[in-house]
Amino acid sequence: MNTPTPSSQPSRGPTEHEVRAQIVDAATEYFSRYGYEKTTVSDLAKAIGFSKAYIYKFFDSKQAIGEVICANRLATIIEAVHRTVGDAHSATEKFRRMFKALVVSGSQLFFQDRKLYDIAAAAAGTPWPSVNGYEQQIRQMVSDIVRLGRETGEFERKTPLDETVNAIFLVMNPYFNPLLLQHNLDGAEEATMQLASLVLRSLAP
Amino acid sequence: MNTPTPSSQPSRGPTEHEVRAQIVDAATEYFSRYGYEKTTVSDLAKAIGFSKAYIYKFFDSKQAIGEVICANRLATIIEAVHRTVGDAHSATEKFRRMFKALVVSGSQLFFQDRKLYDIAAAAAGTPWPSVNGYEQQIRQMVSDIVRLGRETGEFERKTPLDETVNAIFLVMNPYFNPLLLQHNLDGAEEATMQLASLVLRSLAP
Repeated sequence: MNTPTPSSQPSRGPTEHEVRAQIVDAATEYFSRYGYEKTTVSDLAKAIGFSKAYIYKFFDSKQAIGEVICANRLATIIEAVHRTVGDAHSATEKFRRMFKALVVSGSQLFFQDRKLYDIAAAAAGTPWPSVNGYEQQIRQMVSDIVRLGRETGEFERKTPLDETVNAIFLVMNPYFNPLLLQHNLDGAEEATMQLASLVLRSLAP
Repeated sequence: MNTPTPSSQPSRGPTEHEVRAQIVDAATEYFSRYGYEKTTVSDLAKAIGFSKAYIYKFFDSKQAIGEVICANRLATIIEAVHRTVGDAHSATEKFRRMFKALVVSGSQLFFQDRKLYDIAAAAAGTPWPSVNGYEQQIRQMVSDIVRLGRETGEFERKTPLDETVNAIFLVMNPYFNPLLLQHNLDGAEEATMQLASLVLRSLAP
């Protein structure tokens, strides 16, 4: 992330930070309408009313713009999940809410709301650093919830923590990984509920 | 499936059944080398040394040939799974073996052995009737194993059978559905083992 160049003069125009945000907003709008894979930086520049050279002053490539969009979306999903998990009183309830919120926010942000699936697919395919970070955050949340449940006595303690966390992560993976979620959107809500119940049965002391 | 036309005369040439099998064998070989999506019936006819019109006498379309290839592969997978499950003495062991065999045979038959993934993808995308049949057979095997484990006292009996079976089917889905398996091939063996253990913990009485 870039920060505006410090200056003792009052700003005479938009800061670098503002221009970057402006490009990202316009690109989000543009990609969500015309797709990410098929459009070029030239198309995008034309649509925003900037020159291609000007955009390249702020971003090295189309992918660099896509990565910021993706990172923003993933951050929004994680925030939504944290919010809903924070309110829950037991590890059991936290787990159910986490799984549900991941699927609901993920489908909305990549499939329904803006059709930005192209970006999600590109991101999950390589994968981009933001996706790795996203997966680590999910793994961490699972780990925190399992630890909590073990402390409160809600969950069993015999299975090695790492194995429990990894197996749960694998169960959830088809529903938070956009590449897999595209094949699982139908009935994702019921599937998530049934899978959460199965996981919770597996955690019973 | 067609049967040869009954005839009182001794056969003067290959039967319809034989020609169909010959076309399917040649097509399996050809698609595994050049892919299914990109080749046409003309390419295939040329490679086999038949006329396109002759092939169309036996199959309505390229997809009709692909469906037979796919059905054959899926039948081979199911046979392999049945064989390995049959030898196991407990429901627990049957479940572990079933899950493992599905992944091993599936990866071999669609990814390693012949690179027939194109066909699997086309089949799973629509999906073709053979894929629906395959999924039903897997669901039935899961159901049989869960029932057995409930009878022998290995598994809990509180959760409705349908829900238990469906949730297990969902856990396994990314590993037997070729569209999803392509994204899960790395580490599929360990993942399968950990997921099987999680499922078995969820089934504990």
